[in-house]
Amino acid sequence: MNKNFIHFSRRGLMLVLSSPSGAGKTTISRAMTSRDLNLTMSISATTRPMRPGEIDGKDYYFVDKKKFQLMISRGELLEYANVFGNLYGTPKKPVEDALSKGQDVLFDIDWQGTQQLADNENAKKDLVSVFILPPSTIELENRLRARAQDPDIIVRQRMAKATDEMSHYREYKYVIVNDDIEVSVRSVEKILAAERISIERQTGLHEFVQNLRKSN
Amino acid sequence: MNKNFIHFSRRGLMLVLSSPSGAGKTTISRAMTSRDLNLTMSISATTRPMRPGEIDGKDYYFVDKKKFQLMISRGELLEYANVFGNLYGTPKKPVEDALSKGQDVLFDIDWQGTQQLADNENAKKDLVSVFILPPSTIELENRLRARAQDPDIIVRQRMAKATDEMSHYREYKYVIVNDDIEVSVRSVEKILAAERISIERQTGLHEFVQNLRKSN
Repeated sequence: MNKNFIHFSRRGLMLVLSSPSGAGKTTISRAMTSRDLNLTMSISATTRPMRPGEIDGKDYYFVDKKKFQLMISRGELLEYANVFGNLYGTPKKPVEDALSKGQDVLFDIDWQGTQQLADNENAKKDLVSVFILPPSTIELENRLRARAQDPDIIVRQRMAKATDEMSHYREYKYVIVNDDIEVSVRSVEKILAAERISIERQTGLHEFVQNLRKSN
Repeated sequence: MNKNFIHFSRRGLMLVLSSPSGAGKTTISRAMTSRDLNLTMSISATTRPMRPGEIDGKDYYFVDKKKFQLMISRGELLEYANVFGNLYGTPKKPVEDALSKGQDVLFDIDWQGTQQLADNENAKKDLVSVFILPPSTIELENRLRARAQDPDIIVRQRMAKATDEMSHYREYKYVIVNDDIEVSVRSVEKILAAERISIERQTGLHEFVQNLRKSN
């Protein structure tokens, strides 16, 4: 059997993972980008203060409100949202560069940002949206409490936001109940593998089939 | 970590594999149903004569033209097509029973049958269509020639039909170039895994999220 696999050009996709805080989205995102060399994390711009250990340009682009407003007015953001008074947004150019080279980009954004991508005629064809649910409310609260650096008021605020965030699961294409991280990561890997061979992503397919038919 | 995975009710899906003869569809179909216990093969009714080794009710339901026309007029077929003068069709009831029980059904049908499923308002939400392409025309012809039981005229007829069949690849959701059977089977497995967790298939999800939000 011929082992020279056929590869033709492909357009990258935007893999969006959303979930209430504590449902495991960040752990799943890190596992995905470390295992899949063709998947890179989108780096958001934010006005929220830098936390200990965070690196500017790696975790976020830390900008002030004036700079953020400028990025909005220049149309440089693919989506943006206000979360607890802080602005978060996705710079457009690095994402478009990656997609056109056939690289996939992972987005760790909330329902507000996802809605903007889904409503954007250009972006929505590249969008693969996945919502991650916690297995139970008790498990979610335990996970939020285990985060030592957040004070009690933030935990309560996040639990309230979690309930609100969960009301948006229907707006996503895929839903994963994260009962076990490894199982969930493998589910996201399967979604990614399937979406990569969906017809709209395989941009080189048309030429390949034309050649197949011509040589017959 | 909680290992009692959450399972809620799910609607089955119709996995359609189409390809020109010789592209490996039958081999892939057999591998899929032998590996995946929740996937069963849809058994078609046909007016074509039984071949040596075939079993009625396992490979096909072998019926005469009168009986087939009766099934059409009674609305008992989900789709049907005329291929080289023989009629092929899918009895509706066993498929609907399986889907409502959350079982997935694999269809080995051509573009004519797939178009009918895609045009049927009830059926199309359950449809996951995959088109399998040969890696090259030479490889396709080799595979067709290797089938000892088909006379030369049938091989030529099939090569002509293959060219025609391939023109319909764009009507499918996923496209696989079958360069290696094992790789192709794993691709179909990933499509199946992803589609099973798509939001429209997880019919028990709504109740699960309502309970999550209620207990918060």
